[in-house]
Amino acid sequence: MKLGTLTAALIVISISASWAVASEPIQPIPAASVKNKAMVELGKKLFFDTRLSKSGFISCNSCHNLSLGGTDNLQTSIGDHWQQGPINAPTVLNSSMNIKQFWDGRAKDLKEQAGGPIANPGEMAFTHELAVEVLRSIPQYRAEFKQVFGSDDVKIGMVTDAIAAFEETLVTPDSRFDKWLKGDKKALSNTELAGYKLFKEAGCVACHNGTAVGGGSFQKMGLHADYKTASKAQGRIAVTKQESDRMNFKVPVLRNVELTYPYFHDGAVWTLEEAVETMGRLQVGRNFSKDEIGNIVAFLKTLTGKQPDFKLPILPPSTDKTPRPKPFQ
Amino acid sequence: MKLGTLTAALIVISISASWAVASEPIQPIPAASVKNKAMVELGKKLFFDTRLSKSGFISCNSCHNLSLGGTDNLQTSIGDHWQQGPINAPTVLNSSMNIKQFWDGRAKDLKEQAGGPIANPGEMAFTHELAVEVLRSIPQYRAEFKQVFGSDDVKIGMVTDAIAAFEETLVTPDSRFDKWLKGDKKALSNTELAGYKLFKEAGCVACHNGTAVGGGSFQKMGLHADYKTASKAQGRIAVTKQESDRMNFKVPVLRNVELTYPYFHDGAVWTLEEAVETMGRLQVGRNFSKDEIGNIVAFLKTLTGKQPDFKLPILPPSTDKTPRPKPFQ
Repeated sequence: MKLGTLTAALIVISISASWAVASEPIQPIPAASVKNKAMVELGKKLFFDTRLSKSGFISCNSCHNLSLGGTDNLQTSIGDHWQQGPINAPTVLNSSMNIKQFWDGRAKDLKEQAGGPIANPGEMAFTHELAVEVLRSIPQYRAEFKQVFGSDDVKIGMVTDAIAAFEETLVTPDSRFDKWLKGDKKALSNTELAGYKLFKEAGCVACHNGTAVGGGSFQKMGLHADYKTASKAQGRIAVTKQESDRMNFKVPVLRNVELTYPYFHDGAVWTLEEAVETMGRLQVGRNFSKDEIGNIVAFLKTLTGKQPDFKLPILPPSTDKTPRPKPFQ
Repeated sequence: MKLGTLTAALIVISISASWAVASEPIQPIPAASVKNKAMVELGKKLFFDTRLSKSGFISCNSCHNLSLGGTDNLQTSIGDHWQQGPINAPTVLNSSMNIKQFWDGRAKDLKEQAGGPIANPGEMAFTHELAVEVLRSIPQYRAEFKQVFGSDDVKIGMVTDAIAAFEETLVTPDSRFDKWLKGDKKALSNTELAGYKLFKEAGCVACHNGTAVGGGSFQKMGLHADYKTASKAQGRIAVTKQESDRMNFKVPVLRNVELTYPYFHDGAVWTLEEAVETMGRLQVGRNFSKDEIGNIVAFLKTLTGKQPDFKLPILPPSTDKTPRPKPFQ
């Protein structure tokens, strides 16, 4: 094949791939674009730093464990003094694509979210003031904040900016599904394709769409029948105070859903089969057959993308001035 | 310079460096020699896997945090249900050089140590049987165990072998002190050298010697005066039942001591200055001056070597057959 012919062929493939993507309700995840590498590196350290908690034991990574799909794989999380959290920890992977943060959307973005757990008495149980005091006491952190923000001081807004900048890099491109979307027709099996077809036809895709396959809207949990749960969480009504928002939760992203068990805001369901069966019945009014569930689960497993790929950060040591952790007070 | 002359010069440097090393009571840390890369990679995953605990929340890395000098930087560790541990978590860095494992030496090596916390009701609170059942239920783990051990089954001895193999790679070469030992006379300042000289002359080096600058013997905590502590730990007597072993603890390694605060078996002391002052008074019968303490601390900080340098491991997902974590039971 001559070079000219090859180029022409590539253009054709490229155009047909674009058409395929454009006509699907799910879009491939683009690779992360890192705007400020130094800020991302600082945020990565902060994400792993247990000294942002009162106990010195809990970091962002404790509940959004990047070795485990960005979750803790627990029904509800463990907070300071082993307190039981009220809700399932959503994955931090691809969370930059969420319309808002938290299940009830009470934080408008990742920056606002990042400050929440640090000061939540049931989670990291610290204060923003003490967290900043810890960081100020550590020369290497001061130098990094200076480099990134041009400031001799450390402020909580810089801390949450840096954590958010790191979290924005936690996208998972190159899943098999995305390869298929981009034109590699061999990337999916017939079973997986049948699952995707049903996922669209049954209406799952009405909420689970876009790049993150969810995260774009708030929807009522229990449309065709009530959702029975022991959880006290009532969803978005906590934010809007509107009765119509009772049991409205942010639609979870389905990217990497194979890794982010257990499922739903109450973490009550451990298997994808049960989750699909429940969603079918409650949300789209369908009693999926066992084969149908198998097909959809097969499709869902193609959404697992490239996981975080970086070196374990090494954290700068505390100094004599660093406030000491208080795990047992 | 001709190649012949250069070679000769290098031989001379090499010989004089060997002499310097041989005449010092501390030896440089050699780079890790990885015998079985696949076993090390498997052990790394296991080290980070929270599913080896009853709660699904605690991993080896929780208390031997490789971002924090291989410790948790807490006075005593936090175990299942936030139980307060009885003793300070020693660093896992360079722990392969210890004569025995644990402060009281109750485990003969890293393999024997690795099984302890998993089944300790105050730490990971699991059983070896359940830990193995978790791993058996995960196809990717089964495949890795098969590759490494040639076995279709998973046994606890393979789990602890793999963790130990990973831990053996956690050495920290290339500290400034090691560079000095190897002949780079500019690697240390005069203050640091004065500290090292005093460290030898005062007798600290009688126990803190060898490659790990400690870890080679059990010694009485409180030789020249009793050590006052709220800790109930009595040291090696717990293992030997010999009254002469009361308050005998394994001499901690001083490699990376800048990172492994707080100090002593009870974690009662947070600063190197106070640790050196206490050790001088209790162990070698010296009331070090402030300057002397400053010099020794400056020397100790030159023992910080190359920290763990690897990618965060991504763990294989659980399956429907994996026993589920029980954090709140």
